[in-house]
Amino acid sequence: MTKKSTIALVAQHAGVSVASVSRVLNGLPASPAITERVQASAAALGYAPDASARRLRVGRTEQIAFAVADLGNPVYTAMTRTITEEVQEGGFRLLLASTGQGADGPLGLLTDLDGSFVDGLILSPLQVDERVVERLRGRRHPIVVIGSVPDDVPVDSVRADSMTGVRLALEHLVAQGRRRIAFVNGPVDTVPGAARLAGYVRGCDALGLVTHQELQVVADDFTYEAGLPAARRVLDQCVPDAILCANDLLGVAALNVLRERGLRVPEDVAVVGMDDTDLAGMTRPALTSVDLGSIERARRAAQLLLRRLGGFDGPPERVVVEPTLRVRASSGGAA
Amino acid sequence: MTKKSTIALVAQHAGVSVASVSRVLNGLPASPAITERVQASAAALGYAPDASARRLRVGRTEQIAFAVADLGNPVYTAMTRTITEEVQEGGFRLLLASTGQGADGPLGLLTDLDGSFVDGLILSPLQVDERVVERLRGRRHPIVVIGSVPDDVPVDSVRADSMTGVRLALEHLVAQGRRRIAFVNGPVDTVPGAARLAGYVRGCDALGLVTHQELQVVADDFTYEAGLPAARRVLDQCVPDAILCANDLLGVAALNVLRERGLRVPEDVAVVGMDDTDLAGMTRPALTSVDLGSIERARRAAQLLLRRLGGFDGPPERVVVEPTLRVRASSGGAA
Repeated sequence: MTKKSTIALVAQHAGVSVASVSRVLNGLPASPAITERVQASAAALGYAPDASARRLRVGRTEQIAFAVADLGNPVYTAMTRTITEEVQEGGFRLLLASTGQGADGPLGLLTDLDGSFVDGLILSPLQVDERVVERLRGRRHPIVVIGSVPDDVPVDSVRADSMTGVRLALEHLVAQGRRRIAFVNGPVDTVPGAARLAGYVRGCDALGLVTHQELQVVADDFTYEAGLPAARRVLDQCVPDAILCANDLLGVAALNVLRERGLRVPEDVAVVGMDDTDLAGMTRPALTSVDLGSIERARRAAQLLLRRLGGFDGPPERVVVEPTLRVRASSGGAA
Repeated sequence: MTKKSTIALVAQHAGVSVASVSRVLNGLPASPAITERVQASAAALGYAPDASARRLRVGRTEQIAFAVADLGNPVYTAMTRTITEEVQEGGFRLLLASTGQGADGPLGLLTDLDGSFVDGLILSPLQVDERVVERLRGRRHPIVVIGSVPDDVPVDSVRADSMTGVRLALEHLVAQGRRRIAFVNGPVDTVPGAARLAGYVRGCDALGLVTHQELQVVADDFTYEAGLPAARRVLDQCVPDAILCANDLLGVAALNVLRERGLRVPEDVAVVGMDDTDLAGMTRPALTSVDLGSIERARRAAQLLLRRLGGFDGPPERVVVEPTLRVRASSGGAA
């Protein structure tokens, strides 16, 4: 029986939350009534907290940091929410750090936080350069990266399969009779930008689609504001029958630019976004989007980190979350 | 000269960030090169860190917690981003805590966090009941509430003026010739729900508008999903010429329900949201929205807390951020 399920049983028996059980068993503040109920239930179920696990906790901060590049992107909002809940459930507090774009943010953070303030770190960097990799190698605490890391870097990682995700979108559009599929990407010197570009080029190649240079534009950022001029640039230089966008914010920008040009979606041009954020269901037409499993990635990352903090000492995990396609009206779906 | 501006001058002189100056002067980890530059600049400018301020910091956690009800709401996303940046700039780390709806979340948090883990707390509760107020009175650390607190509770607070915000929206709609203005609110047992209802009732009264019961509906939550059935209910029971919604998520739901019913926005029915989130500019028609100053509130809250942590000991501040109306196409604006 895992520690988690035991705690869950105690919580169920005591009629309190898992977080409360975790607090009481780890000696953190809790009300006398809750403390009493948890201790009684733990005793009734014969659950004695593992002394070595408790010893391990001495000198711990009980804190986990989540470093995120852009809190304004709804995909990170969903991840932050999930990680906050998982971490609290595990009896830890969550430190949120905004790193901004580029590699300097994560680097400064690794310097600051991988000292004495946290027991572990979840890092969602857009750019991983050699300095970040070097720092990951010399880490003092468990780190989980949401994204790709080189094979020999000894940290757990959870990544999306953008390549397959882009392929799913392209296959769907081809099945809808689309052949001139434009691509609005974000900056290609970011991890997602590079992966999505590779997915587009290889996918088009495999499906026998044209990939003329005028079908491809790069927005200055993965934001709605950057998506507007990027989508206008596409339409100024070609007549696509579909636009694939590297995230939902760029996708919504494409929808609005098509409307501004008097083009119908999906009759004239189909649009597909990526990340399947809440936003995708709110636009009209609703936006077809590739679900890259952001919530699942956040959950798995938190669980991997909590497992390391529980003493797990196996080799680095490399988790890949499989994408799915959510078809909506912007590419011929129902709503 | 305030402490902040001094640090800013040192940062400028040294060519590093304010956060770096703060780190170095507070003895937190920083690279040798940065440490040297900051110390040289501080010496050059004759800036000696206040010894009493440094003494105050002994035994401190250098952490601030931000407690938020619903990370999925874009208004909290914007607040979280602002607070994270302000707090990091001030040399503190941000703990993010998700409290969920209801008063139990903030209550548990006050129990857990107002112990030894943070130096201060920013609390954005939807519901403040007597137990929360009691706990605020007995706080061990500075607390800033984003929202309303009773006058005699000795904590700083920063609140929106929903009443005036609703009034601005109503006046705008009346100026557009609208007379039957429906109101889609969120739960009225929340702070914003109660304030916005009061604003609607008083505003309609002052402007001589009808406020028949069938013009008012309450959604189960301040979410897009809850907004859909709420907007349908309005249209089932009356024929409004405008719908005022208590936030942008409810506003977008209203836009989509009106489209589903074949009603034109704004020709048949104008729609106004509240909070002026990024979302409001992304829908078509774009959503007119009352800007309740969420980013400004977040910034002021962080600054008030940092001032307390810097030793300020004056009476509790009661800051009210004035609302503005951002007119867009959903009520006859340009785009």
